[in-house]
Amino acid sequence: MIDDLRTLLGDRVSTDPETRARHGTDVSSLAPAPPDAVAFPESTDEVREIVRICARHGTPIVAYGAGTSVEGQVTAPQGGLSVDLRLMRGILALHAEDMDVVVQPGATRAELNERVREAGLFFAVDPGADATLGGMASTRASGTNAVRYGTMRDNVLALEVVLADGAVIRTGGRARKSAAGYDLTRLFVGAEGTLGLITELTLRLHALPQAVSAAVCPFVDLAGAVETVVATLRAGIEVARIELLDETMLEAVRRYSGLDHEVAPTLFFEFHGSPSAVAERARATETIAAAHGGRGCRWAIEPAERERLWRARHDAYWAALALRPAAQALTTDVCVPISALAACILATQRDLAGLPMPAPLVGHVGDGNFHLILLFDPASAVERQAARDVVRRLVERALSYGGTCSGEHGIGVGKREFLVAEHGAAVATMRTLKRALDPCNLMNPGKMFLDESPK
Amino acid sequence: MIDDLRTLLGDRVSTDPETRARHGTDVSSLAPAPPDAVAFPESTDEVREIVRICARHGTPIVAYGAGTSVEGQVTAPQGGLSVDLRLMRGILALHAEDMDVVVQPGATRAELNERVREAGLFFAVDPGADATLGGMASTRASGTNAVRYGTMRDNVLALEVVLADGAVIRTGGRARKSAAGYDLTRLFVGAEGTLGLITELTLRLHALPQAVSAAVCPFVDLAGAVETVVATLRAGIEVARIELLDETMLEAVRRYSGLDHEVAPTLFFEFHGSPSAVAERARATETIAAAHGGRGCRWAIEPAERERLWRARHDAYWAALALRPAAQALTTDVCVPISALAACILATQRDLAGLPMPAPLVGHVGDGNFHLILLFDPASAVERQAARDVVRRLVERALSYGGTCSGEHGIGVGKREFLVAEHGAAVATMRTLKRALDPCNLMNPGKMFLDESPK
Repeated sequence: MIDDLRTLLGDRVSTDPETRARHGTDVSSLAPAPPDAVAFPESTDEVREIVRICARHGTPIVAYGAGTSVEGQVTAPQGGLSVDLRLMRGILALHAEDMDVVVQPGATRAELNERVREAGLFFAVDPGADATLGGMASTRASGTNAVRYGTMRDNVLALEVVLADGAVIRTGGRARKSAAGYDLTRLFVGAEGTLGLITELTLRLHALPQAVSAAVCPFVDLAGAVETVVATLRAGIEVARIELLDETMLEAVRRYSGLDHEVAPTLFFEFHGSPSAVAERARATETIAAAHGGRGCRWAIEPAERERLWRARHDAYWAALALRPAAQALTTDVCVPISALAACILATQRDLAGLPMPAPLVGHVGDGNFHLILLFDPASAVERQAARDVVRRLVERALSYGGTCSGEHGIGVGKREFLVAEHGAAVATMRTLKRALDPCNLMNPGKMFLDESPK
Repeated sequence: MIDDLRTLLGDRVSTDPETRARHGTDVSSLAPAPPDAVAFPESTDEVREIVRICARHGTPIVAYGAGTSVEGQVTAPQGGLSVDLRLMRGILALHAEDMDVVVQPGATRAELNERVREAGLFFAVDPGADATLGGMASTRASGTNAVRYGTMRDNVLALEVVLADGAVIRTGGRARKSAAGYDLTRLFVGAEGTLGLITELTLRLHALPQAVSAAVCPFVDLAGAVETVVATLRAGIEVARIELLDETMLEAVRRYSGLDHEVAPTLFFEFHGSPSAVAERARATETIAAAHGGRGCRWAIEPAERERLWRARHDAYWAALALRPAAQALTTDVCVPISALAACILATQRDLAGLPMPAPLVGHVGDGNFHLILLFDPASAVERQAARDVVRRLVERALSYGGTCSGEHGIGVGKREFLVAEHGAAVATMRTLKRALDPCNLMNPGKMFLDESPK
């Protein structure tokens, strides 16, 4: 197989141990699992030929982007070939009038935003990391803007995909909507590379807002902060972002990013629109916050100040790590209906009370989505197990409220057991689809589903 | 089979010719195709048993709601059983805080809106007809609000589905977003009943806007009207609705609904938000319209006046029919990228110039979606063929601009050839999914795909 790949790619295939090791881990604390080799294709044609070579040899194929997945999606537990798509990072066509853009999967969200800003546009989905757009589509990524602009589910118009049999398909055109045929786009978004390799994406962009204002609002308690979120949404106030940081998280962010905000359960808000609309929404939200134990909002109108605030929010993961420098992080997320958010978060905090490790909580609470970052001592089997137990109880709690085991991180290796707990009989339907499109189980085997071994 | 069904349903199964005939047509001008029998289940359990009985006998199964499909989706070209879901019309659970609702598939959008209004909420997807929500999900329906609130793709949170083998699955929970597993919800939305029968839906609701204003804006020419749409969206002005009516359509609506608006290419606008936000958006849009040949907008602020305006818009189909009382209507829709909308509409109007029949044009132009209603004489084979030729050329034109053969009506029987023209190799992938989930081709056979006969 390596010979075939060398003929195709020359020196753009590597079996170097360091390269393999780098492609066998992500930002999770899961066990590394390096591939046998790494390929660096430059075109869809090369990806198609790679897939055909792997199919001939029965070799597992794992897509790799920025390596920022959180549940082991890019690792290679069954070995095989990692397909690193970072050389396919072109921004192929910007259609400013239509507010869409065609990109290759290896481009990152920051690269895209840099390119489209001068056209007065932006790409709204913003996970913490500067992930690749192909990886973001594959994990159905989300972020702080989702409450207003949606997730990757909503912001991918169409895909080009190489299937397990080497066929190349396009899942749609550039129309804003279509009622023509099955929604293949949404089938591949969130499939974590188990159904095919994404080689091109058509993405929705949005007009940069005329005015933006952000606010940091500390609360007397967590319950009041969460009730403020619910009341704001119910009032139909259009928020672009609502993020919650608990006291531990706020303390971590203060230290790491040098913010001087009060240590308290805190909401970060952002409003987009015309100057007067933004001001009006801000006032209305401040009134709601005050009625739920808000201690007064601090506003950030200037771009540099807002930039600093959101940089601090995006760095929350690193800030959390810095709370306990020798620790590893077990990062997890769940998502529940908004009405259950307060109960779910408060029960989770009670569950954390006796834990021998810091576990800051941060979340995209406008969607009902929140994260825990459990900082365990990697030398302590007890702590590692305690962290895992917290995650299991958290998922059970979220499911008991009609929620999901992951709002944005996905299943990967780390949450396979919970897929069954959440979806029950529907997992059989997912497996049927997987078998239909990838009968030899070449595409990212060992992910998403438990006990699925190559045939 | 009928005996088995009678044992299950008693007198809720019918072979009466009139009932069968009624279930063999929709609002299209396609040839009627009645089923052999019609079942009226009252529960998911009954639907599951019906599917098992049909599977045992190899009987085709066609879901039926309000009968308002536009491409023959509810007809039974291969006979079999029509499953009329109108007895399953319950609104099972309204979660006002979460702004979602659980409904049965036979409830209509008007029934739902009546129920949720007192909670300050509404369901946003509004096709012309008062269709059932199951039917709307199955055809991925859309309407005038889609530019702001999305289509059924965006407004279905989860489904309960009975599969061809009688398995009952739930495709998701009530969380706003999830990254857990394949997006089965979006797979069944738009599948037109070819993959399973929807027996329950969890739908997103939205807060009723504080203020609403609507405007009717005539233009010097169609090009100016379309350019106004593009410029409004590009400016990031949040419109809830932007509808285009050409001169013929406006004349039809004047006559049918007694509006006294000027006969000209016309945009209907609506803005939702706070009173000041609505006023601001209206002013900004009026300025843009004036710069593109707008002749001055007439505003409708009062609910009764707006209601009358949108009633007239929703009745456009009937208004068009009344233009030529003995005619049949060939109704079609396409959707293109916004930048191509003006060129596509103007080329279409040139194509219509020599046509011996009225063909009013109306559209949800904020999405790039527009309709033609071709009023042909059913006694004239020449006219019928001429109308079909217009549709073929319209679809080819839309596809040449990167658009889709249907923005909201779907494929059904009428557009099967265009599915291939649009999706090419991806149709093989759709067929693979169909075979995987429905190997005996029991679910709405003869729809979506050409030359797919029962095995």
